[in-house]
Amino acid sequence: MRAGIWLIGARGSVATTSVVGALALRAGLTDPVGCATAHPDMNSAALPGFGDLRFGGHDVTTGPLAKKAEQLAAAGVVPARLVQAVASELDEVDADLRHAPEGATQAETAALIARDITDFRTRHGLDRVVVVNVSSTEAAPPEHPAHGSLDALAAALAEPGEVLPPSSLYAYAAFTAGCPYVDFTPSTGARLPALAELADQQALPYGGHDGKTGETLLKSVLAPMFAMRNLAVRTWSGVNLLGGGDGANLVDPGANAAKSVSKQRVLHETLGYAPEGDTRIDYVADIGDFKTSWDLVTFAGFLGTGMCLQFTWQGCDSALAAPLVLDLARITLAAHEAGRSGPLEQLAYFFKDPMGDVDHALHAQWETLRTFVGELSAAGAPSGQAAEGGGGR
Amino acid sequence: MRAGIWLIGARGSVATTSVVGALALRAGLTDPVGCATAHPDMNSAALPGFGDLRFGGHDVTTGPLAKKAEQLAAAGVVPARLVQAVASELDEVDADLRHAPEGATQAETAALIARDITDFRTRHGLDRVVVVNVSSTEAAPPEHPAHGSLDALAAALAEPGEVLPPSSLYAYAAFTAGCPYVDFTPSTGARLPALAELADQQALPYGGHDGKTGETLLKSVLAPMFAMRNLAVRTWSGVNLLGGGDGANLVDPGANAAKSVSKQRVLHETLGYAPEGDTRIDYVADIGDFKTSWDLVTFAGFLGTGMCLQFTWQGCDSALAAPLVLDLARITLAAHEAGRSGPLEQLAYFFKDPMGDVDHALHAQWETLRTFVGELSAAGAPSGQAAEGGGGR
Amino acid sequence: MRAGIWLIGARGSVATTSVVGALALRAGLTDPVGCATAHPDMNSAALPGFGDLRFGGHDVTTGPLAKKAEQLAAAGVVPARLVQAVASELDEVDADLRHAPEGATQAETAALIARDITDFRTRHGLDRVVVVNVSSTEAAPPEHPAHGSLDALAAALAEPGEVLPPSSLYAYAAFTAGCPYVDFTPSTGARLPALAELADQQALPYGGHDGKTGETLLKSVLAPMFAMRNLAVRTWSGVNLLGGGDGANLVDPGANAAKSVSKQRVLHETLGYAPEGDTRIDYVADIGDFKTSWDLVTFAGFLGTGMCLQFTWQGCDSALAAPLVLDLARITLAAHEAGRSGPLEQLAYFFKDPMGDVDHALHAQWETLRTFVGELSAAGAPSGQAAEGGGGR
Amino acid sequence: MRAGIWLIGARGSVATTSVVGALALRAGLTDPVGCATAHPDMNSAALPGFGDLRFGGHDVTTGPLAKKAEQLAAAGVVPARLVQAVASELDEVDADLRHAPEGATQAETAALIARDITDFRTRHGLDRVVVVNVSSTEAAPPEHPAHGSLDALAAALAEPGEVLPPSSLYAYAAFTAGCPYVDFTPSTGARLPALAELADQQALPYGGHDGKTGETLLKSVLAPMFAMRNLAVRTWSGVNLLGGGDGANLVDPGANAAKSVSKQRVLHETLGYAPEGDTRIDYVADIGDFKTSWDLVTFAGFLGTGMCLQFTWQGCDSALAAPLVLDLARITLAAHEAGRSGPLEQLAYFFKDPMGDVDHALHAQWETLRTFVGELSAAGAPSGQAAEGGGGR
Ligand SMILES: NC(=O)c1ccc[n+]([C@@H]2O[C@H](COP(=O)([O-])OP(=O)(O)OC[C@H]3O[C@@H](n4cnc5c(N)ncnc54)[C@H](O)[C@@H]3O)[C@@H](O)[C@H]2O)c1
Ligand SMILES: NC(=O)c1ccc[n+]([C@@H]2O[C@H](COP(=O)([O-])OP(=O)(O)OC[C@H]3O[C@@H](n4cnc5c(N)ncnc54)[C@H](O)[C@@H]3O)[C@@H](O)[C@H]2O)c1
Ligand SMILES: NC(=O)c1ccc[n+]([C@@H]2O[C@H](COP(=O)([O-])OP(=O)(O)OC[C@H]3O[C@@H](n4cnc5c(N)ncnc54)[C@H](O)[C@@H]3O)[C@@H](O)[C@H]2O)c1
Ligand SMILES: NC(=O)c1ccc[n+]([C@@H]2O[C@H](COP(=O)([O-])OP(=O)(O)OC[C@H]3O[C@@H](n4cnc5c(N)ncnc54)[C@H](O)[C@@H]3O)[C@@H](O)[C@H]2O)c1
Ligand code: NA
Ligand code: NA
Repeated sequence: MRAGIWLIGARGSVATTSVVGALALRAGLTDPVGCATAHPDMNSAALPGFGDLRFGGHDVTTGPLAKKAEQLAAAGVVPARLVQAVASELDEVDADLRHAPEGATQAETAALIARDITDFRTRHGLDRVVVVNVSSTEAAPPEHPAHGSLDALAAALAEPGEVLPPSSLYAYAAFTAGCPYVDFTPSTGARLPALAELADQQALPYGGHDGKTGETLLKSVLAPMFAMRNLAVRTWSGVNLLGGGDGANLVDPGANAAKSVSKQRVLHETLGYAPEGDTRIDYVADIGDFKTSWDLVTFAGFLGTGMCLQFTWQGCDSALAAPLVLDLARITLAAHEAGRSGPLEQLAYFFKDPMGDVDHALHAQWETLRTFVGELSAAGAPSGQAAEGGGGR
Repeated sequence: MRAGIWLIGARGSVATTSVVGALALRAGLTDPVGCATAHPDMNSAALPGFGDLRFGGHDVTTGPLAKKAEQLAAAGVVPARLVQAVASELDEVDADLRHAPEGATQAETAALIARDITDFRTRHGLDRVVVVNVSSTEAAPPEHPAHGSLDALAAALAEPGEVLPPSSLYAYAAFTAGCPYVDFTPSTGARLPALAELADQQALPYGGHDGKTGETLLKSVLAPMFAMRNLAVRTWSGVNLLGGGDGANLVDPGANAAKSVSKQRVLHETLGYAPEGDTRIDYVADIGDFKTSWDLVTFAGFLGTGMCLQFTWQGCDSALAAPLVLDLARITLAAHEAGRSGPLEQLAYFFKDPMGDVDHALHAQWETLRTFVGELSAAGAPSGQAAEGGGGR
Repeated sequence: MRAGIWLIGARGSVATTSVVGALALRAGLTDPVGCATAHPDMNSAALPGFGDLRFGGHDVTTGPLAKKAEQLAAAGVVPARLVQAVASELDEVDADLRHAPEGATQAETAALIARDITDFRTRHGLDRVVVVNVSSTEAAPPEHPAHGSLDALAAALAEPGEVLPPSSLYAYAAFTAGCPYVDFTPSTGARLPALAELADQQALPYGGHDGKTGETLLKSVLAPMFAMRNLAVRTWSGVNLLGGGDGANLVDPGANAAKSVSKQRVLHETLGYAPEGDTRIDYVADIGDFKTSWDLVTFAGFLGTGMCLQFTWQGCDSALAAPLVLDLARITLAAHEAGRSGPLEQLAYFFKDPMGDVDHALHAQWETLRTFVGELSAAGAPSGQAAEGGGGR
Repeated sequence: MRAGIWLIGARGSVATTSVVGALALRAGLTDPVGCATAHPDMNSAALPGFGDLRFGGHDVTTGPLAKKAEQLAAAGVVPARLVQAVASELDEVDADLRHAPEGATQAETAALIARDITDFRTRHGLDRVVVVNVSSTEAAPPEHPAHGSLDALAAALAEPGEVLPPSSLYAYAAFTAGCPYVDFTPSTGARLPALAELADQQALPYGGHDGKTGETLLKSVLAPMFAMRNLAVRTWSGVNLLGGGDGANLVDPGANAAKSVSKQRVLHETLGYAPEGDTRIDYVADIGDFKTSWDLVTFAGFLGTGMCLQFTWQGCDSALAAPLVLDLARITLAAHEAGRSGPLEQLAYFFKDPMGDVDHALHAQWETLRTFVGELSAAGAPSGQAAEGGGGR
């Protein structure tokens, strides 16, 4: 399969780390540490190779990708030697990035977005392209009647004014262009009835929401531990300190709220009750991409005896996110090829706020994902490979 | 089923907390928080009721159980009001405790132990009794040729001298008396070929080793998380500070070594490689039963970026252990009734150092246990209930 | 000296812990752990004895003090045996508590407050009474022109409407009654020009603000450490989780803001610059009086190398505050007797938000306090003792 | 003053970081962050300028200094750009490093060491040279009768066999060469009566022991906090995880013991009693120079209520040590010039295990140091500067 990823927010930290990593993997300079799809249990011929992915994307900023990569190296997010080694390939990717277009109406903007994507697909002779949103988190948009059906939406987009938030407009354009769409952010994305209708019409799969890379990842194994031990969690309170572009954006109360909500779902759904406590996100420029989270869990054991667990997670957010972006692209591309469409609930392993009424325990999500990838492999791979005349790796 | 638990180390913290808790459950004064067998998924008519268990046991100390219970209340391990509420029932249990006997040879000692247990069974008309070792952790014993076969062992025990460490002698006596045996400690217990032979001969099940209540419990969910995320754990170093009787005993280097070894197994077996680092246990009297553990995990993510996780666990050891002791008794009694024998590898969920070549991930152990309890239920319950003319709880 | 403390918020946690402690000290049942004035360096004959203090006070709630003390015992704040031992003395104190009065105007209310206090002084034949505010934290009041001078204030208070927030009205009443006033809370208290004028007129000393018992206490030694090592602190971010009455009240954004501001002053004033980061206070009912704070400090060392310090403080707020309340009362009473008046900047050791332009390093504050107590001792003690015909202890 | 530092262990991490830093300071490429002598309060014309110090030294390894500096840059200890900027100056320093000499007797070895140092002084026309020991920590040496007097020592050194451990032989040689000696390690160094006699004879000052850069630094402000609050510390237990050369060496039980002992002194001497608990040092290669320490402090407050403080220190050991090495050199050189001799107890601020019966509170040590530097300034500077015909920087 000749495949591509179109990144929304293509000049951001997560996007750039993903690109540097994929190029370094292609050059055989690094191992796919942190990639679920590189785990022996998840290995599948149905997935396009890490090194086979072409990158393009949209952003609203303009600084060169290589410069951003150097900044990430200076900050310790990626090794400087890798950035140097893939410098010319980075410039090639840069040539496939486009400034986010703006039409007179949102319908026009969507058409321009779609054209950028289809041009990219054609230019490189790709079988398929997945659109992955890694742009800044938006505040939740106001409700709008046109969100409810595709016809109403099409009509409303043709009028001046903002009907869809950017993430949803990108999803609309992706679907129009025949591309699956994955949202790595807590933004609205494809989560509107009108967009579900469009994906359905186009027989396209889509996934989301909000990559699970830190505190929530820990919750997805620790909350099941408390549940399996039948211990009564009373409080789960946390604070996340982070800098970087994502942190700066989350100073906005709307974006912050979107993020905090998706972080608490796992507790209620795993434990069967909601412990006291909140999750806070604070911006601290000096911390940069190395997020520091502290959580306090108080719980009662046998006979009501009170105890507690604390943890501090010091993780490099982009380095945790980038391999998941590659995983999501590989799997979604394979799912598309295998003829899957609609919401991919099987991707819950990747998300803080997964689609569907799914289990929030990481091990259950892992099993689901493994089974799904196995099915794709059984179904699609052989014929797919034949159709492509070999390839992959 | 009319059932009993015979506790080795019956006047210790774990034992006393187990007894107070079972009596409080019988009186309807508390809920079985912390008991796996009280989880909806594990509910089974095959298990004897919490309140139906009779308690007896051996110890080498003599202070009254009620006094020990009051000390535990003063230390915050159990609520004072519960100790007061079950004071007279505690005295009844006390009447079933026996001083650890000493014969001229270990064979004689074993016979005396067995007689205490069978007397208890007869006195209370019990269908079956499970022996649970919650006595002080021993150092690993010197190897002895008689450990290799039952005949050689029987012959050696009849001579003066110490052939078996106490935990194994108790296991020998338990099997002789027709009782299953569970070892909640890292001591040798039934882990000798000669004793496996005896259990086999007597068609008895047995389980162990070393209740999983703190740092290792966390490892059993966090190590799988790192594995499922395909992250490369480099260091896992920890320190456990604890006081109480168990802590005091672990000052002994032999006992400490036994304990530390069982705490590291989970990492190697879950990750597939052994990270750097050690687990230390230090005695700090002031901390009492409220163990405080700190662990540092360093790991590499995508492109080798270094990150870390720290956690501090402040748990009341006896309050974490006691519900597991009740769980183990209930399940082992039901297994015995259902005709199971040999090492119960299905109990891995409970242990730091489980028997057999089992998965160390808690969720896998939970599934195994759930299936096992389900099978016991399917097999044994109805006829069992019939045989007992109703009863249950 | 025959001396009394009049507590505003007399039925709250800090007040009740202070009373239980003083009664237990009087009965010789405990040691003055946590009291600065019990330190060998601070010992002074000028201070009234711990056991010589009489307690009275105002509150807006009515539940008996003994009941509150039992609740504190159940929560582990004070030992149950001490509460039992001083039960009848607690009832005696209860007889000296009064419901917060309400007049038709604030002038009337102030007169009623003052009368309650002078009645208490007369009833028990006390030489002097200090008023200590340990009531709920208020939001900052709106500015009012009458705050600027005593004449304007007196006129405005005689009209209907709220000119002063409660803490300031209590300060006004205290000064009117000839009593020094100490504010253990971040509320406005005596911090208004009109009240300074009144204190001056009455030759009364006063002190505040906001008892320093947790995170800020740590900052007052750790920030000087960074300064003395010439290290560059970049971030200091913290979160405080607390329950109890104080925590519940701080859910109110106004009260929370008052508190957070006083918590950051120490950094700026000790380091000479303001690091990034905030201090948050969150209410978590389950945590009760056992506040848990986590702080992250990132700093740069030689050649800019980044490093970090984290700490978690798990302290019982009322048990930390109560000995300071006793210290403050003893010292302020002695200062009054020694003829001191105006703002007592020498009390900075006790406060998060001390009065005056003082050093925020704990060790400097300690030296200042020690010198001050020494001076009181040199000046006032002998004659004072003579005047009282002996007494004290 | 034309001054030099002769480093024992000159190719180690602390030494190399000190040299890189001094060269970068000389070139105006960095600020003296982390240097006490750069603090406004400590500024003094009596101290030689940072950039005026010449470096030489001994080591037993041979790899080039520039290579070691690059390794430290790769590990994040020093910035790569600074290492590049001072590359040629590093090579110049390398030319002044000598392999640790070995004579037929220790007397011969000492003479060779002294000659290397005096050659260095002469070669560069230096007024004075301070010898600073930053070599690997030794185990405590066996007692030897010749340690007691200089005559006995001189006689014994002339015989074959090891009378002095390396650190003491270096001190002996330094004193012979007329150089002050500072020991940054916990090794024996000048702490022998015979060496005190020699320093006295030569009118030389000396200082030590064991640079205070991490956990002990925190203890030196936190223990005073507990003391000033009159709180009762019950437990102080800690673990230090570190890699690097120092960590590797501390795997040796003798060296580890030397280090752990000096880490506990501060508690006993500050609090007036010894809390329970130990300080452990574990080697973890992956952690490298970024030491991670965790400490748990349990304490009792008013009425005995139990509370706790935990902290985690993640510091780069060499980056914390290097500025102190420069400080020590500057101050000791100035002290020598000002005619001071004997043990410099005023340097306690720098050491875990300071000489003399000194206060262990950091703020008291800071005051002492400040006064001392002020005196040096008052005494020696003007004439000194005159003598040198200007100079300084
Ligand atoms: N890093 C993680 O661990 C993680 C986890 C979960 C979710 N996320 C989400 O991923 C997203 C990216 O994070 P990041 O750290 O890379 O942030 P970033 O700020 O570095 O990058 C975001 C990029 O999006 C661009 N952008 C903003 N609006 C756009 C628009 N309308 N069209 C196109 N581009 C636009 C910005 O210019 C920027 O380059 C955020 O929404 C974040 O919340 C990240
Ligand atoms: N509490 C936990 O979380 C936990 C977890 C895993 C394992 N364990 C193990 O459980 C055991 C009990 O722990 P505890 O905290 O109750 O300790 P404890 O010291 O309070 O109790 C041990 C009891 O065993 C008795 N004993 C010692 N030797 C004996 C012998 N030969 N025969 C009979 N009795 C004997 C002692 O007198 C004591 O009463 C320990 O081995 C401990 O390592 C506890
Ligand atoms: N505990 C600490 O460590 C600490 C430290 C610094 C400051 N403080 C401050 O001390 C105060 C008391 O804390 P607490 O934990 O005892 O709180 P609490 O809620 O237990 O007690 C406050 C009491 O004040 C009473 N009150 C409220 N309004 C009043 C009024 N107008 N007149 C008279 N009484 C009134 C309440 O009824 C309550 O009984 C708070 O303002 C808190 O912020 C406490
Ligand atoms: N870094 C800190 O924060 C800190 C704090 C206090 C004390 N110290 C002490 O400083 C010393 C140096 O620490 P480091 O991290 O640089 O260690 P390191 O292992 O990197 O360097 C020690 C150097 O000493 C050399 N050496 C060993 N024996 C020698 C001998 N006989 N003669 C000459 N050189 C010899 C080694 O070859 C090595 O180059 C250690 O003793 C350490 O305990 C360091
Ligand atoms: Na445990
Ligand atoms: Na150190």
